[in-house]
Amino acid sequence: MSSPEIAVHMFDKALRLLTDDANKIEKLIEVQMQNLTTRQCPLYEEVLDTQIYGFSREVDFAIRAGLIDEKSGKDMISKLERNLATLYEALNQKE
Amino acid sequence: MSSPEIAVHMFDKALRLLTDDANKIEKLIEVQMQNLTTRQCPLYEEVLDTQIYGFSREVDFAIRAGLIDEKSGKDMISKLERNLATLYEALNQKE
Repeated sequence: MSSPEIAVHMFDKALRLLTDDANKIEKLIEVQMQNLTTRQCPLYEEVLDTQIYGFSREVDFAIRAGLIDEKSGKDMISKLERNLATLYEALNQKE
Repeated sequence: MSSPEIAVHMFDKALRLLTDDANKIEKLIEVQMQNLTTRQCPLYEEVLDTQIYGFSREVDFAIRAGLIDEKSGKDMISKLERNLATLYEALNQKE
């Protein structure tokens, strides 16, 4: 692999890793949305909060390291936060 | 900057960012060690736990992205965890 390709490869890889991590959290939120009627685990929301916090630290690091641009990173976090807010709303309406 | 230099620059930058982040947490632990006698804020330990969790996510991402080697990353986290354990021990002895 030539050297410019190495840098491009690193950017691609970073974005792929972050997208995968975001998708995993997305899945967790979806599962909880589908289980609104059961809500077996009250710790689930705290787990989601923690996951999103951890993810935001990854994204922040990737931005500072110059691997992804700031807007893409912030958009990824905002999307997760919006989905989480929708979940909370649905949970509150259920109560 | 030539292309091989870009990659080296990215590795260096990633390591510098992580070292800076680790140093910030280190400082927080030190401050709390010095304030053992006052212990004004019971949330301080939770803040430290959260900080170290966030940092471990940054390091994990940097390892997966190929920016730092696994051993260096794990060593950084272990060092912080050991210092936090020392702080907890000191707090418990005080009680």
